[in-house]
Amino acid sequence: MAQLRVGLAQVDSIVGDLTGNVDVVSSWTRQAVEKGCHLVAFPEMILTGYPPEDLVLRSSFVQASLSALEGLAGRLADEGCGEIAVFVGYCGRSGSPSPALGRPAGEPQNSAAVLHGGRVVARYAKHHLPNYGVFDEFRYFVRGDRLPVVRLHGVDVTTVICEDLWQEGGPVSVACAAGVGLVVCLNGSPYERDKNDVRGPLAARRAVESGAALVYVNTVGGQDELVFDGDSLVVDSGGNVLARGPRWEQELLVVDLDLPAATAEVIGPVEAGGTTMTVERVVLSERALPAYEPAFARIVEPLGDEAAVWGALVTAVRGYVRKNRFSSVVLGLSGGIDSALVATLACDALGPEAVHVVGMPSEWSSDHSITDAQDLAKRQGLHWSVVEIAPMVDAWLGAVTLTGLALENLQARVRGTTLMALSNEHGHLALTTGNKSELATGFSTLYGDSAGGFAPIKDVPKSLVWQLCRWRNADAAARGEDPPIPENSIDKPPSAELSPGQLDSDRLPSYDVLDPLLDAYVERDLGRCELIEAGFDAETVDRVIAMVDAAEFKRRQYPPGPKITGRAFGRDRRLPITSRWREHAAPTADEPETARPDR
Amino acid sequence: MAQLRVGLAQVDSIVGDLTGNVDVVSSWTRQAVEKGCHLVAFPEMILTGYPPEDLVLRSSFVQASLSALEGLAGRLADEGCGEIAVFVGYCGRSGSPSPALGRPAGEPQNSAAVLHGGRVVARYAKHHLPNYGVFDEFRYFVRGDRLPVVRLHGVDVTTVICEDLWQEGGPVSVACAAGVGLVVCLNGSPYERDKNDVRGPLAARRAVESGAALVYVNTVGGQDELVFDGDSLVVDSGGNVLARGPRWEQELLVVDLDLPAATAEVIGPVEAGGTTMTVERVVLSERALPAYEPAFARIVEPLGDEAAVWGALVTAVRGYVRKNRFSSVVLGLSGGIDSALVATLACDALGPEAVHVVGMPSEWSSDHSITDAQDLAKRQGLHWSVVEIAPMVDAWLGAVTLTGLALENLQARVRGTTLMALSNEHGHLALTTGNKSELATGFSTLYGDSAGGFAPIKDVPKSLVWQLCRWRNADAAARGEDPPIPENSIDKPPSAELSPGQLDSDRLPSYDVLDPLLDAYVERDLGRCELIEAGFDAETVDRVIAMVDAAEFKRRQYPPGPKITGRAFGRDRRLPITSRWREHAAPTADEPETARPDR
Repeated sequence: MAQLRVGLAQVDSIVGDLTGNVDVVSSWTRQAVEKGCHLVAFPEMILTGYPPEDLVLRSSFVQASLSALEGLAGRLADEGCGEIAVFVGYCGRSGSPSPALGRPAGEPQNSAAVLHGGRVVARYAKHHLPNYGVFDEFRYFVRGDRLPVVRLHGVDVTTVICEDLWQEGGPVSVACAAGVGLVVCLNGSPYERDKNDVRGPLAARRAVESGAALVYVNTVGGQDELVFDGDSLVVDSGGNVLARGPRWEQELLVVDLDLPAATAEVIGPVEAGGTTMTVERVVLSERALPAYEPAFARIVEPLGDEAAVWGALVTAVRGYVRKNRFSSVVLGLSGGIDSALVATLACDALGPEAVHVVGMPSEWSSDHSITDAQDLAKRQGLHWSVVEIAPMVDAWLGAVTLTGLALENLQARVRGTTLMALSNEHGHLALTTGNKSELATGFSTLYGDSAGGFAPIKDVPKSLVWQLCRWRNADAAARGEDPPIPENSIDKPPSAELSPGQLDSDRLPSYDVLDPLLDAYVERDLGRCELIEAGFDAETVDRVIAMVDAAEFKRRQYPPGPKITGRAFGRDRRLPITSRWREHAAPTADEPETARPDR
Repeated sequence: MAQLRVGLAQVDSIVGDLTGNVDVVSSWTRQAVEKGCHLVAFPEMILTGYPPEDLVLRSSFVQASLSALEGLAGRLADEGCGEIAVFVGYCGRSGSPSPALGRPAGEPQNSAAVLHGGRVVARYAKHHLPNYGVFDEFRYFVRGDRLPVVRLHGVDVTTVICEDLWQEGGPVSVACAAGVGLVVCLNGSPYERDKNDVRGPLAARRAVESGAALVYVNTVGGQDELVFDGDSLVVDSGGNVLARGPRWEQELLVVDLDLPAATAEVIGPVEAGGTTMTVERVVLSERALPAYEPAFARIVEPLGDEAAVWGALVTAVRGYVRKNRFSSVVLGLSGGIDSALVATLACDALGPEAVHVVGMPSEWSSDHSITDAQDLAKRQGLHWSVVEIAPMVDAWLGAVTLTGLALENLQARVRGTTLMALSNEHGHLALTTGNKSELATGFSTLYGDSAGGFAPIKDVPKSLVWQLCRWRNADAAARGEDPPIPENSIDKPPSAELSPGQLDSDRLPSYDVLDPLLDAYVERDLGRCELIEAGFDAETVDRVIAMVDAAEFKRRQYPPGPKITGRAFGRDRRLPITSRWREHAAPTADEPETARPDR
């Protein structure tokens, strides 16, 4: 057996910021060296940030990534970090001279490199390209078919990238056939609420299959609609978890491994698991290290459901605001629960000094609206102000005749315009407060309550909104702190307060019926018949799915927000706006119009 | 040789409207029968509409498509159309029992069927799945590997789908090896301005390669951001064009073909052009038809550039409005050229009765703004009204302090909110009037001039806006009609009129510099160095690409509009919002902030 001390650099990066990302790798590599690591692994595409989307189709971008990688190798050696083997993700380029119609321009690859002694000593390109859900990698990348095996202190180490681990066969099978002792998997794997416990068992299974230990390093942080949770881990070849990192925090996770001494000399084309790849070998050091005392490795306990979701939303808000160089946010505070949740998330993400909340009462606002909103601002120490909307609404009513929904929408748009004006005047990012139940049913006003730069809870169903607020208050109480959210805001019946005495329940089924129905229809793609078979009332099914089918235009116009479920609205679910497909049997004459922008 | 009379049904369909689309096929098949056709071909996925996007991941949707196909076969026979061979596109399902992570749920296929005698006699599934530009077919479909050869009146006929023709090798090579006499290609091929003349030569080349005549039938009509132009054609095995349909109109194009009598009996796996597919055979009728006198076939002359673009935009507006069941539109008319163009397009698409235009002057509007706008409304007979924005702006200024850009944006948002209010109150679809040069540079106000349901000229650069207006006026004059657009609107210097004496040229380079620069940077993906080498001034390059790089958030919030260029903003260009990638060398401190929603 041979020992290796391995560091997993579970770090954040910024898409496109090659200079800043190189600094990140340099600084964390230095920490790994200080902790005595022989190998440090960074996440997928750490140099470019992930996912860079269409940027990779620009030749100048790929060239910048390649130059950054070469520069980084030299810089690490200059900084005294030439002895450690550094595994980093970057955007490479296939040397293939076979451009074809539809192959991505410039033949970019989702690549990993091993840096050592001032040089790039090995390169790998992702073999399994995911092209489902939020992933479009057939659009962006050309697959790789070469597997580098690097001998480091007498251990054969190879690297693969994210999806390579999730698919059966492919590089992990080839790595097994090549007899490696350690597989280093670089990941950009987004958080998903119901997939909490998928990664650990998967990593264990692959380790057992390949007979090699597995290092799984994941990025952490928010990138537009994606939020990465870290949760990096190490398993031995028996499938036992040796170390596991935290969620939602950067960390250098260090673990000492006992690995089989390398003996195999397999090289060239290897067929395994239905895949043929070319194995290449690089020897950095043949000899095993002298025996040393292993260090303690951390195994972080998993978070509970609400704590994990809370962490995702806070991380997403912080990432979006800071990476886009904002220093403050503004949002409307209605006294209701949705805006209370968004304000609290923003405060947890950015601190109270950065959060500006505005009460915008109308003649139909209830008395408690403004007092509950003010109560929340006071509890959390947020900047509070009030803008009455009546003068603006009256100005319109003096100019045009508006009734019913048009008048309701006008009030919401006066509020949206007020927030955007404050955003423009003071440089705050405007946060939108709509939840997923509203987004699904189109129960919102375009350019009104949907106006803003980021929508923190657009993938949070209303039932989970309540659950999260109650959890946050209880968690504060358990720590001996005052609950940040007024009980009044949690307990009152939901209302948009756009007409006298209005309640959500006038237009929507109760949320304890609506949310499970939306989950079945949107997340699980059940059809009308299956929904009715599953026990939902037929009339409710028809009513709700008609609303969902007709609201695609509004959803497309919504600002980005963090995806936490399997089928978030946004890049995860791509439906035509112009569509007459209706799950329900008989479209009625008064069916809501697709693409009609009203509440 | 053997004769066949072939009909190309160049028709429109509506995504998701299976019942309506079945009616379309039935009605056009009857016309083909009346004209004596032996075979009629419909476009790609005519039964479901194209592209149906994530709808195909719903099992109930695929099932509905399969049922519609079976029902259609029976109905055609019942209606006396059982003798003609009908080639239709639909959404099929792979029988493959090998689901894997990331394979599209339910294994949908982009399929074609041959209907005859009340039955589905042959099925084909698209082999080459495009996954670039606007296409995401790896996300949606499983490829097919079976090629049906149908013997009809002694001629061997096969079918392929769209991309199958564009890629080298694949089904067309296999069809050649199988000795077919006629290839029927079903298409959903969107219009692109600079690809005017690509299809004809491609069809001719494939026909010569395969030694078979080729029928290329394309759909026509608008579908969200895509607009299909028809332009169906038939070439003989020597590559000569025998018939060509119009653009922007539905048509049954009829042509008589002299084809080789079938002799080959190839069946089972065939390898050709690097592809192995299984050839299947169906015999409908072995004997050639008695000789008959061929009918005259139309070859429509190609349209000029402006006429083709005009047709695309009018078709897109008409399609979006009608398919979404609107009957009227509303837009703001500023007296400037952009809104003049959009109003004229809407009038050409829907007729003057359906177009409502609103003048919304402010204290900084020039005198000619309102008179030029009114002049246009009068020339075209549109509904004209005026809403002064001062009372609403003043109401805000009484409530919050707003200066500079915030005040400019407020005016645009008051106009946007006014149009949305009229849209909600009267059921008009609101049209947005921004052009591609504005969209590229972020020179617009979120929820202001960008508010609306459809953006007809979002892919039209400002230079082309002028060109189209001048062409439309000249075309009217050539027909002896009054020019619809006031010369004043065409000739005045462009201005947003949001502050005293403001001109576009205060903030943007002149459009004769800006538009070629945008074309090089956005369409052709040139990097900073290449732009400067190409002769653009370095300072202008840095200024413009900084604006483009920073405006992604605004572009994402823009309503859909027809794509006419190679890299339209929208589904064609997918960039991260959160990105620090800057082509220019040195980001400056006052660089516009990404995701900051201001003008």
